Amino acid sequence: MKTKLAEIISIGNEVLAGHTINTNAAYISQQMSAIGLPVYWVTTISDTHDEILFALNTANTRADVVLVTGGLGPTPDDITKATVCEYFNSPLIQNKNVLNHVQNLLKNRGLSLLDTNMAQALVPDKADILHNPVGTAPGLALENKGTYFFFMPGVPIEMKRLINEQIIPYLQKRLNLPAIRSYLLRTTGIAESRLFELLKDILKEYSQFPLAFLPRHIGVDLRFRLISDNKDEQQKFESFVDAVRNKTLKYIFTEENVELEQILGQLLKDRKLTFSCAESFTGGLIGDLLTNIPGSSDYFMGGMITYSNASKMNLLGVKQKTLETYGAVNSETALEMVRGVQQAFATDCAVATTGIAGPAGATETKPVGLCYIAARYGNEEVEKEFHFGRDRIINKRRGAMAAMEMLRRMILKIH
Amino acid sequence: MKTKLAEIISIGNEVLAGHTINTNAAYISQQMSAIGLPVYWVTTISDTHDEILFALNTANTRADVVLVTGGLGPTPDDITKATVCEYFNSPLIQNKNVLNHVQNLLKNRGLSLLDTNMAQALVPDKADILHNPVGTAPGLALENKGTYFFFMPGVPIEMKRLINEQIIPYLQKRLNLPAIRSYLLRTTGIAESRLFELLKDILKEYSQFPLAFLPRHIGVDLRFRLISDNKDEQQKFESFVDAVRNKTLKYIFTEENVELEQILGQLLKDRKLTFSCAESFTGGLIGDLLTNIPGSSDYFMGGMITYSNASKMNLLGVKQKTLETYGAVNSETALEMVRGVQQAFATDCAVATTGIAGPAGATETKPVGLCYIAARYGNEEVEKEFHFGRDRIINKRRGAMAAMEMLRRMILKIH
Repeated sequence: MKTKLAEIISIGNEVLAGHTINTNAAYISQQMSAIGLPVYWVTTISDTHDEILFALNTANTRADVVLVTGGLGPTPDDITKATVCEYFNSPLIQNKNVLNHVQNLLKNRGLSLLDTNMAQALVPDKADILHNPVGTAPGLALENKGTYFFFMPGVPIEMKRLINEQIIPYLQKRLNLPAIRSYLLRTTGIAESRLFELLKDILKEYSQFPLAFLPRHIGVDLRFRLISDNKDEQQKFESFVDAVRNKTLKYIFTEENVELEQILGQLLKDRKLTFSCAESFTGGLIGDLLTNIPGSSDYFMGGMITYSNASKMNLLGVKQKTLETYGAVNSETALEMVRGVQQAFATDCAVATTGIAGPAGATETKPVGLCYIAARYGNEEVEKEFHFGRDRIINKRRGAMAAMEMLRRMILKIH
Repeated sequence: MKTKLAEIISIGNEVLAGHTINTNAAYISQQMSAIGLPVYWVTTISDTHDEILFALNTANTRADVVLVTGGLGPTPDDITKATVCEYFNSPLIQNKNVLNHVQNLLKNRGLSLLDTNMAQALVPDKADILHNPVGTAPGLALENKGTYFFFMPGVPIEMKRLINEQIIPYLQKRLNLPAIRSYLLRTTGIAESRLFELLKDILKEYSQFPLAFLPRHIGVDLRFRLISDNKDEQQKFESFVDAVRNKTLKYIFTEENVELEQILGQLLKDRKLTFSCAESFTGGLIGDLLTNIPGSSDYFMGGMITYSNASKMNLLGVKQKTLETYGAVNSETALEMVRGVQQAFATDCAVATTGIAGPAGATETKPVGLCYIAARYGNEEVEKEFHFGRDRIINKRRGAMAAMEMLRRMILKIH
């Protein structure tokens, strides 16, 4: 069975100008992938007759399903509907159900019916009408030369309801969609090129399956996907995933679409451990990331951001002698910081970061990107030297990630 | 003069699959608009030979400038470069400068050169090489039938550096771009609807000029743009901007494309003031934001993230009686926190936040979004109650913004 392919067309000047980020396309792609309809093209165009016609024409030649958002609002600068009528050679007619729905919606909001609202009940006569429970513009389904077209408003909440309640059932009823398997291995602590070297032989052995390497500043995601009903192929695919998983096990912090702070937070919560942090290099980022998680007050007691030497001494008990002998950026300072913060907040675990985030602050022996991180879990302690890059903000992210990962490995005894 | 048009091609299965939201396209659109090159098409395609060729071909027929991101990484699943060579009929050659740069980058990170890294120094022989200071893959500039093509890695920080440092100057040197006047008034502390009311009469008087209201969680941006070589029109446009500016002066924290933390940081630096913060509601975000700014160690001494009641008492000297009488979320606690942190870090200024970020933690009298913020400048102190929304992460951002703005107004004596 040939894989059926989908295309997204986003219509709207706001998206095109970059003032609105196209989150709709990402949402639709994920929903379509999940039912076995990978999206192969996303096109963003302005709300103009010629651009819309060109995009519909092109999509008709290559896609099985075309999902169009935007341009169905009530204001007259949306000319999508007129162009749709032209393309499908289908004149506008008034739809009673839509008119009733629009009247009810407005009544519930205490508004009266305007001409622009009346216009929303006009739909192309060949279209199947998709009920939009949260807005006045209905979705439209049309077919041309074997390709299904869906038109939705650009308002995210309306689009989402239409996708889930109308379009997915509509497609599943009409198209014979394949089985899908997908995996995500989220790694940290290993560079993309190293990871690739490590997996070279496995990739060669299973070269029929594509594996996407997705570098992030804080690690590399490995993404697998198989669209196939063939049992043999499915089994081989599972062996491929297993082989990669086993080879990279110590670097994988999750197989879910979540961040490390959520994994660490959950681990602390499950083990009933409390946590604190002393941040110089990361400047508060570790605290910020952990407190983004609802319920983090269960395990996160707090932290110290000690940017000055005085605060490292007065608040964390770093010894003046340590600072005089080695400076603020060294492993002994990191260790004294982590001990100090663990004591100050009386927590089970703690981490500390100190380093030169850049762009200034480097010395002859201490380059930008040098960072020392220490972690404590009970009375155990670990410290490590890192060499990050030259970008201050990325350095902070990488430092926060490395500190959280160090503690996670300590708690789980991964070496 | 005919307006020149730009097209963006985003290459990458991740964007297509919806796992990565296409923020790159939004950024590039904004930067191109700013130099008078509006983006008319954004196309997202997979990293496959046929799709890339089709997209390059289509763009070549309609755009003056084509900006391509993604597909330039070191792993073999990126076939963009090979397809670029084919399209421009330009074989790969090794570039010594790129090779040196890659070697240096890796050396600074303590890594050795792998085959995959070596491959990044291979570039199409017709391409102008655009130096990428923060990554191993260089940008490429090529020209075909009067259209300029630029190829960049998909990593946002690398793309941004290439756009600003290489591509914009490259285009400005070669294209005759129209006169553009644009202004940005960045406001905070006033809702969009109130701002609109305030400006109603001015908007009517100058209705020939569009004014974009761009709400952000932490304020509203007002964006003005005029593309015109007409002197009269330019003068009227300036009067319009002046009228809006005068009406909203107390809410404008900057007219540059910078964030409040940069404005506050610069103010502290200029006045030689030191700063510290006590964060409960914001969980480290204020520290994180300020330490994102290079050189912030000049004025930022540090902070306390006091998530637990014990840490509020032990580290900041909040009175047990205060916590027992009013709870942790009230103005008295905020004031004791800000006094405590100012003293602990011996700083000229300080802020403190306490509140219920949500989604849990609300009581009958204290809803999610309630937040108390206090600020001190010398011996002066101010505190204020805020009612933010229901989203935890947005609440933290709004809290951090409000705290920094409170201190900024205090220092500048804006009431």
